[in-house]
This record gives sequence, C-alpha cells and structure tokens, in this order.
Amino acid sequence: MAASKHIREISISEFFAKNRHLLGFDNPLKALLTAVREAVDNSLDACEEAAIMPDITVEVRAEKGSHFVVSITDNGPGVSKAHLGNIFGKLLYGSKFHRLRQSRGQQGIGISAVVMYGQMTTGKPAVVITKTGPKAPAHEITLQLDTKKNKPKILKDKESKDPIWANRQSGTQITLHLEGAYKEGRHGILSYISQTALSNPHANLLYVDPKGKKHAFPRVMMTLPKEPSEIKRHPHGVELGLLMQLLHDAKKAPLSQFLKKEFSRISDAAAKEILKGAKLPMTRPSQNMTRPDVEKLYDSIQATKLMPPPTNCLSPMGEDNLMKALYWFFVESQRWDAEEQLSLVDSQAAQEDGKKGQSEIQFEATENSVLSRTLEADEDGAIASREDGYFVTAVTRSPFVYRGNPFQVEVGLFYGKGLKQDGLMQVYRYANRVPLQYQASGCAMTKAALSVPWKSYNLNQSKGALPTGPVVVMMHVASVWVPYTSESKEAIAHYPEILKEFRLALMECGRKLQRHLKHQKRQAEEAKKRGYIEKYLNPIGEALQAILKLSEKDKKKTVENLTYLLDKNYGQKKSEQKND
Amino acid sequence: MAASKHIREISISEFFAKNRHLLGFDNPLKALLTAVREAVDNSLDACEEAAIMPDITVEVRAEKGSHFVVSITDNGPGVSKAHLGNIFGKLLYGSKFHRLRQSRGQQGIGISAVVMYGQMTTGKPAVVITKTGPKAPAHEITLQLDTKKNKPKILKDKESKDPIWANRQSGTQITLHLEGAYKEGRHGILSYISQTALSNPHANLLYVDPKGKKHAFPRVMMTLPKEPSEIKRHPHGVELGLLMQLLHDAKKAPLSQFLKKEFSRISDAAAKEILKGAKLPMTRPSQNMTRPDVEKLYDSIQATKLMPPPTNCLSPMGEDNLMKALYWFFVESQRWDAEEQLSLVDSQAAQEDGKKGQSEIQFEATENSVLSRTLEADEDGAIASREDGYFVTAVTRSPFVYRGNPFQVEVGLFYGKGLKQDGLMQVYRYANRVPLQYQASGCAMTKAALSVPWKSYNLNQSKGALPTGPVVVMMHVASVWVPYTSESKEAIAHYPEILKEFRLALMECGRKLQRHLKHQKRQAEEAKKRGYIEKYLNPIGEALQAILKLSEKDKKKTVENLTYLLDKNYGQKKSEQKND
Repeated sequence: MAASKHIREISISEFFAKNRHLLGFDNPLKALLTAVREAVDNSLDACEEAAIMPDITVEVRAEKGSHFVVSITDNGPGVSKAHLGNIFGKLLYGSKFHRLRQSRGQQGIGISAVVMYGQMTTGKPAVVITKTGPKAPAHEITLQLDTKKNKPKILKDKESKDPIWANRQSGTQITLHLEGAYKEGRHGILSYISQTALSNPHANLLYVDPKGKKHAFPRVMMTLPKEPSEIKRHPHGVELGLLMQLLHDAKKAPLSQFLKKEFSRISDAAAKEILKGAKLPMTRPSQNMTRPDVEKLYDSIQATKLMPPPTNCLSPMGEDNLMKALYWFFVESQRWDAEEQLSLVDSQAAQEDGKKGQSEIQFEATENSVLSRTLEADEDGAIASREDGYFVTAVTRSPFVYRGNPFQVEVGLFYGKGLKQDGLMQVYRYANRVPLQYQASGCAMTKAALSVPWKSYNLNQSKGALPTGPVVVMMHVASVWVPYTSESKEAIAHYPEILKEFRLALMECGRKLQRHLKHQKRQAEEAKKRGYIEKYLNPIGEALQAILKLSEKDKKKTVENLTYLLDKNYGQKKSEQKND
Repeated sequence: MAASKHIREISISEFFAKNRHLLGFDNPLKALLTAVREAVDNSLDACEEAAIMPDITVEVRAEKGSHFVVSITDNGPGVSKAHLGNIFGKLLYGSKFHRLRQSRGQQGIGISAVVMYGQMTTGKPAVVITKTGPKAPAHEITLQLDTKKNKPKILKDKESKDPIWANRQSGTQITLHLEGAYKEGRHGILSYISQTALSNPHANLLYVDPKGKKHAFPRVMMTLPKEPSEIKRHPHGVELGLLMQLLHDAKKAPLSQFLKKEFSRISDAAAKEILKGAKLPMTRPSQNMTRPDVEKLYDSIQATKLMPPPTNCLSPMGEDNLMKALYWFFVESQRWDAEEQLSLVDSQAAQEDGKKGQSEIQFEATENSVLSRTLEADEDGAIASREDGYFVTAVTRSPFVYRGNPFQVEVGLFYGKGLKQDGLMQVYRYANRVPLQYQASGCAMTKAALSVPWKSYNLNQSKGALPTGPVVVMMHVASVWVPYTSESKEAIAHYPEILKEFRLALMECGRKLQRHLKHQKRQAEEAKKRGYIEKYLNPIGEALQAILKLSEKDKKKTVENLTYLLDKNYGQKKSEQKND
C-alpha cells in the first residue's frame, strides 16, 4: 500500500520533535508552561514516593528575545547516577509506565521532551544537579538528547561545589534554556502553580516570576497524602491477545502459579475454579497452550466471579480535604499576607546566612491555618457562612473499575465570596492532582459539567453552556492509568464511566448548593417582607387609629404589640432555621 | 526527581499498546472505524503516488461476539518484499515522515497499530497479500507485531495461488481480526466511506457492510488530483538547535553548499548574502562552527529576504471540484441508482466469469455524471437552482506559511435540498482529503465555524452555537504537515493562522449565501404580495363598482386591466431576475 522509496525507521525522538504539539509545545506560551509543569509534576511524585513533605521552587527568567531560563528545585530524594542520563535525556524511560500505581507522571516522556525542546529551540543543553542524601556528593551533569538515537549525550559530569548543595539534605534541580513567551492569565504559570497548591496543600511552593516577583503558596496541611500502593492487573481487564503473550512469557511456570503471580484477586480457590472451568490441568506449563486452550482459559476467567481490583492504589484528596483546600484558597488565604511572610524570611535568611541547611522555602501559614483545625461541616457535608457569604461542599465517589483499572472521581464546589455574580461557572480540572489548563472543550470533565441540569439547582444556565454564578467546581480523577487525549496530558478522553461518575458527583454537589441557595433566598425574602412591614407599622397604627377611633395611647400599644409579634414570629423562624 | 526502583526503557509499541486511545482505539466502535480508515488512507496514498485511479473495496464481517474481520483491497502499486514486514508490523516506519509532501499518512504508525490492536484483542495475526506488477507473483504473508521489540514477526510467507490475484495488475489486500462494535451513524464506517467519496471523487469505493449489503460510491471525476511535489525545508522555519544539528550532520560540506542543499529558496545569491551577513566564509566546512558562529548564521538567515516556500507540495481540491463534488453528493447521486448498477455488475461478472482481469469494482457513474460536464457558475462563483432548491459555493484560499510549512485551506458550502430546515449546520472536516469524524469540539475547524457571525449572513444562530438551517460546510486543510491534536488524527490543533484562514473562507462563502438568501427572500415576498393582490382583485373590482357606479362590463374590464398590469409588472421583474 505504500511506495517503496525513502522508506525507513523513525526514532521516537524524531517523531516527537516533529510532532512536538503532542507533548504540549505547540506555541511558545504553552511551551514555557509545559516545561515548568513536567518538572514540578516529577518533583511532587518523587517527594511523595520518598515520604518527604515537598518544598519546590520554580524560577523563570527572561533573557534576550524570546529566550527563557527555567529552573526547578526540589527537596526530593535525588536521582541515582546510574539513571541520571536516561531519566533526563531519553524519551520513554522511567519507573512509572510499567506499574499500576497512581502518580502524576505515567509515560516516561515529559522531562526528556522538555530537554529536547530546549535544545532544539536554543541549542543549549540542560543542567541537572542532584543529591541523594545528606552525606552523598551533589552531582552536576550537563546533557543533551541525541534526537536520532533517542539517547542522552552527557557533555559535562562533575561534583557540584556549590555550598548551598553541601548544606542540603537531598534534592534535584534542573535548569533549562528554551524559546518561550510569558503571559499570565488562565493558562499561565502562576495559575498553574496556584491550582497545584490547591490540589497539593501538603506542599510549599515558591514561584519567582520573570519580573523577580515572589509568589508563595504555603503548606497548609501537615500530612502527606495517603501513599498509593502498587497493584497487579485484574484478570477481567485482560484481552485475549495479551493473555496469549503473558502465557508465552511465563514459560514453564504451571498455570495455577501463573494466574496467582500475574494477576490480582486470584486466590488458590479462584485459580482452581478458573482452570476447572477451562478444563485445563493446574500443572500445565504456561507456554504449552494451543490457541483453543487459551480461548477456553480466557472464557473461564471472564465467567469466574472475582473480587473487584484493590483500590488502595488510589489516593483521592477526600471530601474533607477538598473542602478545606477550597476554603483556604478562596477565603482564608486572602487574609494571609504572602509579601510580609516573604520579607520576614528574607531578613531571617540574611541573619543566619549560611549557618544552617538552607531550604529557600521557610514560609509557613500552618500554625494559624484553618486547615490544622477541624472544620465543622453540617450534616449535608457542607460549610457555609452567611456572614462571610460563602458555601463549600465536596463529594468523593466510591472507586469503580474500567478495563480492569480502578478509577475514582471527586468534586469540590465553592460558591460566593469574591467570585463574579454573573460570570460563567469556573471548572478546575485535575488528574492525579495535576491541574489541566488546556483543551477544556475536549475534556470529559467539561462535558460532564455541561451535562448537569444546573437550572434545577437554582443557577441560571443557557442551553449548551455552563451555568452562570459565583461558582467554582474542582473536578479530580484519580487512577493508576489516566486516559489523556494526548501525551501532553491536557484533557481526559470521553470514557462513558468517567463521564457518569463525574456527573453524579456534580449533581450531588448541585443538590447541596440548591438547599443552601433556597434557604438563602427564603431568608432574604423574609428579611425583605419584615422590612416592608416594619416600614409600614406606624402608618398601619395610624390607619387603625382612624378606623377604630383608638386613643394615641392605644395606637402606640397596638404598634408595640405588632412589633413584638413580628419579632417573635420571624425571630423564632430564624433560630429554627439555624437548627434545621 | 524520580525514584530509582523499576526504572527501565519502554518500547514504543508497549507505549501505544497501553495508550491505545491515542491511536483511535478507545472503544470498540471507534476501533473498527480506525482499522478501516488507516487501511483506506494508505491505499489512496499509494494509488495516487503511483498515478493509479483508485479502486478500493472495504469488507467488514461480524464473527462470534464482538469479533470482526476487516478486509481492505486496493489496486495500488503493491509493496516490495523488502519492506513488507516493517510496513505492517513495526510502529514508526515508513516513507512519509521524513519528507515534506502532502499525503494522508504522515507518521508511519497507523496500519501497524491496527495490526497490533487486532492481535492484542483477538490473538490473531494479520494477513497481507500484495502484488507489484502484472507479471510479479502475489506474496502472501501472515504476521504479528512483537510488542516488546517493536518488530514484525512473520508467521507464514508464501506465494498466493488465488486465481483472482493472478489476474490482477497489482494491488494490496490486508485482512485483520479485531474486537469491535458496529453501528452506523455520524461516526460509522458508512459515513466515513461516503465522506471519503466526497473528498476523493476520482476513486471508486465499494463497501460491503456486516449485513452483506453493498454500498457503491462511483468515480465521478476522471483525473487524478494534481500530484503534490516534495519540497525541502524553508530556512525561515528552522530553529537554532536544529540548525546546529544539521550543520554538524553536514560534516565537511562548505557552508554555501550546505545552505543550498539543505533548504528551499536558497540561490547562489541568497547563500552569498546570508554568509556575508553572518561574516562567515563561503567555504568554511559546516561542522567547524562555534556556537557564536551558528548564532550569527541563524540571525543572518532570519534577516535575509527569501521567497516563501514553494506551494506545489500542496494539492487542494479547488473551488470547481469542491462545488461539483457537493453537487454530485447532495443532488445528482440521489438520482443514481446504486442497487441497479451493482446488480448489473454482478450479472456481467457472472457471464464473463474469470475471463478477464477481475477488479471487483466495475460500476461507473461517469458517462452521465455532471462532473464530466462543465458546471456554469455565476459571477459569484456559485451554482444555484431555484426550481431544485439548492445553492452551492466554494472558496479556496491562497497558500500561507506557518513555521516554514505551507498550508492551504478551502471551504465548500451546500444549502437547501434534502437538508433539515431547523437542524444545526453540519460541518464536514477534512485534512489532506481525510474526513475527521471524532473530537469535533476540540478541532480548530469547529472553532473557526463557531467564530463566524452567521446571523449577518441571514442564518439563525444562538450564542456560542453553530447556526441552524439546511447547510453543510465542507472544510479542508491541506499541508505537508498537518498539526493533529493526537496520533489518532481526529482534530486539528488551534493554530491561529489556520483558524484565521478558515474564518475568512467561511465568511466569503457566507456572504455568497447571504446574497442568495436575500434574493430568494425578495422573490418569495413578491410572490406572496402578488398572491394577495390576485386574491383581492375581484373584491377590489366590486368595491370600485360600488364607489364609481361602474357597469358590470366596466367592472370586468377593470379587473382584466388590473390583472394585465400585475402580470406585466411582476412577470418582467421575474425575467429580469433570471438574467441578473
């Protein structure tokens, strides 16, 4: 079907160099964001795997023209020398692809793609400094990616003599040169960092923008997220072709052992039942299977009832944390003075200069933060303050399974304070705690939000559009394998199960919001009515005086009585409402 | 930044096996379509490169459960034995990636990915039969893809003894087993084939659906599309990093020669001017360049005025062909009886059984087709018939250049006959003549169509939605490199230049439509007015009789006179309109 001239192999790095928009480098604005994003995602993953509370600094510097220098520093566990080159200078290399465990990275492409993009656009190599423990030396390598061979090319490899690194416990820093463009806004870096802070309240994030301005997002939660476990494949998610290959690879292992070793949820009894159903001996070597044998085995696996896959591989934020994070973000952090905290830190650092292990990040909002307190949610699972004019709620759904992979979705909703009354609902999309900023229209989360009948929940909504109102929804999908629509990880594919779960979570949040709004409306109406009556109490008294020929004294008393009744009536209602 | 355990390399085929939705295999329905699509795209490309008028048969057969067998046969040039295995059994292998020339395929992934998906879901290999010339033997190979190594595994390799192949001139057939689901509709195979017929009027397409029903789409244009040429890179689209690599690869070639050989639009004079501007000698060996040298060269290239890239690498459909294809599709093909043609062919084939080189496709609508005639367009570049109630127009924009790559967009518009009066405008999206059926909401073409103020062109349009009316727009982008949003080639990335060009083309079509609709409306209004007057002529006569005391005879005469005047007046207007 193809002409035979010029036919040859294409290296994976040539492929992505040409199709760089697949990796998030379609334009200079996005390229700069992608570079920051890939590095920060890696840093957060690494810190959490090593059970380190993340401190991450992002610095973006503008050089001549559209040339930028990006530097990301973390306090993670560092990278061992053996893997250093490949991790940063080879596409499709890493630890996250072959395992089933929730993490931000999943492909082994991201950071090496950034290195490649940087060298393609500026010709300059990347510099990585990494340290694996307090007594280990800090390595500094300068590297490029050989695009034709998809291999790292190490230009320099030395021990770093920087005193800052000597004082550090461990960590990694990557510095990159690339063509970019800088603009803040919905798709900008500041927006990315702040949305990342929202979904990672256990991290300290410091962002130094190209103008040198520091933006601090303090750690507001003192515990790491629950560590997700690694799981095995679930037998019901395996297709015939893959089963054939796995059997072939298992060589002489007996079938019962193969089943137990390769899959989750296969007990001795289950293995026995499956093989009995397939009429195959327990001890048959796995590779000695004819095609009809494999088909029988496959059918028997499908027919055998098995427990659904374990869901401890998932680490959702949880309803309580979602509410707290939203509350901090939209209410309390507005009172927290980042500028003041940062100048404090700077003067401290100047005083102690070099004396102690310097982590650039020393601001903490935690002591006084609401997030170390318990927030009292009502029985609806919502927090609201009528005085402050906000309402927060969240719903975390139970995990579900799709193609053998466990998924879990959750939605947080914030209403009121500080948001525009007549703007469209804002949708913050997250996958495995990573904010998604592009391709909103092509994302399953947007589609789910559009599919909800918000009118029934007392919000205005035009056909085919998001509702209007002072509302933000934070949508999060957690999975061992997130089905992004492209390698650049910008949107989630329209899997029917994901759509359905999000829709249900949104509707539950919607119903809670509706009760709040109804209540608010009723109160407002009563207050208005009361206002009217109060305003007319005197004229009413006068009218009664004229009709009933009351004395001035009687008129006064009548007005007093009416006022008392009114107070009693509405006052009671008010306190009843507080308890309902 | 990454933990060191379990780190290893990921093969490109493992990557795509896990992320198969990137290649269009997210669900069984789409998987079946993708399989057909990749094979048909390859067949069309191969036929056109070999200057063969394409005859393509697609057969989809349902087996047990969700198991399908798909078979695509073409009369293309066949595949030489040397490349056979790799073309069908290795991802990232092919002739189209490394050249700059408009073609349907561009990545060397598609067909091998289909083979991989088939074997993963059913465990069954693919069978390919191919023949490169009338005297060459037909090869038949049975193959799989070794996912871990990304290499073909040939299971059988023999000469085909099938008499059908002995009689064929040349061609290729691929037969695949895969898990799928079958449903017709907007995203179905029939829709794909018919939209492909619309953009490839030079092809005969026969589709045999799972129920055995034949759908014939006859060749209605007797010439192949203009053959696109292969071009070199344009110097203004090259980035610094790439320039460094190209210089390094050029070894000892003198700079002036390097420039002329590597890029388009570099004459002796231009090379001289560039090197003079960079203060570099013409004869310096390309690899002997320091970083500052390369930067100087790069800046001088950017500063030198050069002709834009040649655009003979593009082969748009053209306004005339777009209009003809739409006219055929929506008007004339409705009168063409596919059933009758096919039964004719079947009985002919039965008579001549085996006597001549059997191409399964022998139906042709061409002799009587409007497409072999010249359609008379008005000075607006539109064809319309008030009697038949349709309007067709098209706009092909001039080529433009983005990142050194030439692009060209065109839009055809059909209004009226057979389309729903109150439906949303239908958008048929095409890239290099391939119809795009999924991810409409994430596509630059949809975005462009949404951005047009259709209300100004007399169509109803709600905010943020497509307009309503009996309208189809056919949007086509042609390029040597189409920026798809994912490897599955379903939508075009939102490049500002592409959006702008499409918007302009749509608006030009819109203005033409507006003139047509205005005209139509005026006519309708006049006819209505005339109808009213006619209805009241007698009562008017009677009224005049009563007022002016006319005799019965005078009244009759007056009515006759009025009728005459009316006829003359509107009759004239009507014939004037016919000439304008």
